[in-house]
Amino acid sequence: MEGYKSFLFFLVTSLVLGFTLVIFALVWVLHYSNGLAWDGGNAEFNWHPVLIITGFIFIEGIAIIVYRLPWTWKCSKLFMKCIHAGLHLTATILVVVALVAVFDFHNAQNIPNMYSLHSWIGLTVVILFVLQLVGSIFVYLLPITPVSIRAAFMPIHVYSGLLLFGGVIATALMGITEKLIFSLKTPPYSSLPPHGVFVNTLGLLIAVFGGLIVWIATRPGWKRPPEHVEKSLHPFGSTADDNTADYDKEKSDVELNNEARKRNLKLDDAGQRSTM
Amino acid sequence: MEGYKSFLFFLVTSLVLGFTLVIFALVWVLHYSNGLAWDGGNAEFNWHPVLIITGFIFIEGIAIIVYRLPWTWKCSKLFMKCIHAGLHLTATILVVVALVAVFDFHNAQNIPNMYSLHSWIGLTVVILFVLQLVGSIFVYLLPITPVSIRAAFMPIHVYSGLLLFGGVIATALMGITEKLIFSLKTPPYSSLPPHGVFVNTLGLLIAVFGGLIVWIATRPGWKRPPEHVEKSLHPFGSTADDNTADYDKEKSDVELNNEARKRNLKLDDAGQRSTM
Repeated sequence: MEGYKSFLFFLVTSLVLGFTLVIFALVWVLHYSNGLAWDGGNAEFNWHPVLIITGFIFIEGIAIIVYRLPWTWKCSKLFMKCIHAGLHLTATILVVVALVAVFDFHNAQNIPNMYSLHSWIGLTVVILFVLQLVGSIFVYLLPITPVSIRAAFMPIHVYSGLLLFGGVIATALMGITEKLIFSLKTPPYSSLPPHGVFVNTLGLLIAVFGGLIVWIATRPGWKRPPEHVEKSLHPFGSTADDNTADYDKEKSDVELNNEARKRNLKLDDAGQRSTM
Repeated sequence: MEGYKSFLFFLVTSLVLGFTLVIFALVWVLHYSNGLAWDGGNAEFNWHPVLIITGFIFIEGIAIIVYRLPWTWKCSKLFMKCIHAGLHLTATILVVVALVAVFDFHNAQNIPNMYSLHSWIGLTVVILFVLQLVGSIFVYLLPITPVSIRAAFMPIHVYSGLLLFGGVIATALMGITEKLIFSLKTPPYSSLPPHGVFVNTLGLLIAVFGGLIVWIATRPGWKRPPEHVEKSLHPFGSTADDNTADYDKEKSDVELNNEARKRNLKLDDAGQRSTM
């Protein structure tokens, strides 16, 4: 791997930061709030931030970069796909429990559901996330899907995954904002008590974690190289997996640029282009 | 341009949506809130969302995709860089006025500054944005910067730009959340009055606009092709601009992957890799 030391630095920083987020979430609810319980009160609500941060941010972040770990490049792609899908599925289960906790808390406290922008965007992200998960299992794990379909969907798969991860982070930051305004009354949030400073810091760290994951995921030199495709032929009879699809996509991007250049030269010659 | 119709669809949708965001922001403050003024009251605060949405979301979004417009590919790269930088500078000026409005409003109303997560992340984004702008002017507009430096910084420039754009959107969504909780009292936000529905919808549209801009910016086939580099030699004596740097970067990414493949094969042979 090119830039291996740099990769290791970013990976270790992300992992340490990811664990820190989970610890911060636990300190928030156990030290500054009412702890954890399933009693219809604040302690039940508290499962919501803990599970979202653990599942939808930390585990989801790891799921996104799991193909980048060079130690796994000897493993079959199918095995790594199962790890990737398994981490997403784990995140989904934690998110569902997190949603049940908050709806149950609202209902017990007669607080209306689904009125805030946090809830609108949050539920949209969760629905799209589940659709992405189910769709991706059909496209990338079922052996009947042709490699051309896998290749065609890969840019959308990668884009949606990163966009939804960004959506999760934005939603978490909105959720923190809401919760601090609602819960910090004496002393108020505006006087910035230690509780507020601590959870604001958690919010900042969540944003930094998101930035690190996106950096690792988008470095071309840190991608799982395609030479291992021969080792990972699909056991159910497919002749190639989406590792080939990735590679085909990369090649086609380069070809696309060349094609675009040729077309533009033709357009130049014909003088058909207008200026905006 | 490959996929020209698809590009046009995304571009037109983004532009229509971008204008819609500005109109929504104006309807919010003029119809649902206290209008616009510079009087230390709510009407002064209202410049904040209007200018942020206009400058930091709409204009900034256009600045990000301006190189993608195929009609501009006949223009010199230096000219397009000035457009790109000019749009960023315009956004910066609007953002500074937006910040002055909110600080002035807070001071007039004796509301503490800089306590919320929205303000912490927002100010961080603004500072990083200004650093990115100034740094990029030095690296990409000053003729003395060698093309190797330009090429080396390009991945960071692109990544930072998109990440900060995501940060702006997340901050805007937090700001909307805060403002609706603070301002919607009778009827409360939780009863979802038309004001709340309208501004929640604005928040959702902001997120969709962000997604569209990131999609357009990250399609490899929609990038400005490098053949026009000959036309855009730097007038101050540089032999190449960062269009070449872009292309060199793309080439080096492909080379990096090939290099990575070779290295991994060597590691395979040596059996030096562990499994995680």
